[in-house]
Amino acid sequence: MSATLSFSELRDLLEAIFLRHGTSPDVAAILAENCALCERDGATSHGVFRMQGYVDSLKSGWVDGKADPLLEDVAPGFLRVDANNGFAQPALEAARATLLEKVRTNGIALLAIRNSHHLSALWPDLEPFARQGLVALSAVNSFACTVPHGGKVRVFGTNPLAFAAPREGADPIIFDMATSFMANGEIQIAAQKGEALPAGAGVDASGAPTTDPRAVLDGGALLPFGGHKGSSISMMVELLGAALTGGHFSFEFDWSGHKGAATPHTGQLLVLIDPSHGGGLPFGLRANDLVARMRASGVDRMPGERRMANRARAEREGIPLSDDVLGRLYAYAGRSEDT
Amino acid sequence: MSATLSFSELRDLLEAIFLRHGTSPDVAAILAENCALCERDGATSHGVFRMQGYVDSLKSGWVDGKADPLLEDVAPGFLRVDANNGFAQPALEAARATLLEKVRTNGIALLAIRNSHHLSALWPDLEPFARQGLVALSAVNSFACTVPHGGKVRVFGTNPLAFAAPREGADPIIFDMATSFMANGEIQIAAQKGEALPAGAGVDASGAPTTDPRAVLDGGALLPFGGHKGSSISMMVELLGAALTGGHFSFEFDWSGHKGAATPHTGQLLVLIDPSHGGGLPFGLRANDLVARMRASGVDRMPGERRMANRARAEREGIPLSDDVLGRLYAYAGRSEDT
Repeated sequence: MSATLSFSELRDLLEAIFLRHGTSPDVAAILAENCALCERDGATSHGVFRMQGYVDSLKSGWVDGKADPLLEDVAPGFLRVDANNGFAQPALEAARATLLEKVRTNGIALLAIRNSHHLSALWPDLEPFARQGLVALSAVNSFACTVPHGGKVRVFGTNPLAFAAPREGADPIIFDMATSFMANGEIQIAAQKGEALPAGAGVDASGAPTTDPRAVLDGGALLPFGGHKGSSISMMVELLGAALTGGHFSFEFDWSGHKGAATPHTGQLLVLIDPSHGGGLPFGLRANDLVARMRASGVDRMPGERRMANRARAEREGIPLSDDVLGRLYAYAGRSEDT
Repeated sequence: MSATLSFSELRDLLEAIFLRHGTSPDVAAILAENCALCERDGATSHGVFRMQGYVDSLKSGWVDGKADPLLEDVAPGFLRVDANNGFAQPALEAARATLLEKVRTNGIALLAIRNSHHLSALWPDLEPFARQGLVALSAVNSFACTVPHGGKVRVFGTNPLAFAAPREGADPIIFDMATSFMANGEIQIAAQKGEALPAGAGVDASGAPTTDPRAVLDGGALLPFGGHKGSSISMMVELLGAALTGGHFSFEFDWSGHKGAATPHTGQLLVLIDPSHGGGLPFGLRANDLVARMRASGVDRMPGERRMANRARAEREGIPLSDDVLGRLYAYAGRSEDT
């Protein structure tokens, strides 16, 4: 059994949930939009699946849903935000206008968010910039769940790295990848479904390779993607997301006193580049040249295209949610199911 | 049989070779230093092994060893260089002072080099910046030798991505990785030695997986590291190294009319960040915290440490070269072996 919601119906429902659990109206609007975008685009591990984590984290007092981000304009190309133990997305929103002004003036600009919580995907943060013609890169560290290549103890988070580049007359190219072999949300979904993980995804509590998602979650660990190279990139995400911003490393915060806390308390880096300053033909045309050659090589799906296809379908047909999931969302919102 | 040279002896010998093959004195000094650094630090696939490629490329007229790089200061944080069909390293050298001024003033700055040839490693480009307290990132695309994930035809180069971060009281953390499974130099060395490649390194001319380095070089192709994730990063390197700078993509230049040409004619991007503008404790101390935790986890070698160990040994004991290799270098330099 399932129901179908429009994007705005889903966003409004999620907004009600955030408001009911102690966020400010601004934060509720920003996070509801973000989470509904993920669900709409088929990024289900960051969609309504995450609402329990948001709700429990807010209930536990671990994250401040009413925090006011503090902007620190420290150099012509360097902007900082202290999220004041709030979510990263409202911190980005508070910085957006200044950041855009900086990148347009300087050709490149950096936003360093610290003291922040990020429980979503990175592509929703980057896509608007790419649609404004900018190249964008972001890194966020998370919570220690990944063993570095050659190590035996969890140090890194899933540590996503995302990149967005504009195209001329087409949707931007966007990738958003955990630098662990898989993302935590994917492991949790596999555990819920009772599905095995691919080889190389993780180790159990004894450090032995395992394909059992529960063994990874229960004292085991993820592995980085791509061996020592992926491990180096995950290390870079720690340095950019935490050391550079002033946030916590993935291994540095202790949420054990906050039952249900699920939002990593770290930092986030964004770098924006205005490619109109580059040499040669316009960037968007050149990006199209590369895409054409990749397609001719046999690549049938560019990074980000599946989301665009899901989005188009959701705009035509609505966003399907099982009765079970929808019931839980209504309960979080304090509504009866038929309202 | 082998001989041992000091760093300055090797550098001077390589400088003589470059000069004898038509570079300007400045270019000879810069490339000789660069190549000797690689050999000294044990990065042998970019050391004197590369001299044949340099010599043949210069002889063929493919690259201009006397090119004057043209600086274009286009925005407060955005500097471009047209290398004028010369090498990338002299272009970086020409830009260095302005680039450093920009990053110190703005907090972040970008250098886009185009119309350039890069046949070396990237870490020698980044290490000096990290030793000046800066975080540095560089990407350079190369020549089409790698099949994108899901594709059947070569599109990407080996497309290295390098990152450098300063530490307090210690050598910087530096990684420099081909985003292909292996680097071309490594494949060539394996072919010379008759060694098999690891599984996953490449495909033969029919597209079938192979561990034979000659099959990869003769009509086959490399694969990206780390499956679709590594392939996305390699794509990012094309976009940053070529689309953003105004250089050629790895599949765009035709060197078939220049017998022996080995220097990819593409572009290079560098991004420098001044972490002193970041929040929290000084970056170098925070980097030390991360390194300490990685070591405690069991990681016995941080990225870049092997090079530092090789460097220390070379400074004590000199740089060993086989008689065979040394004879070839003397011949390139037009010297008899006993001078």
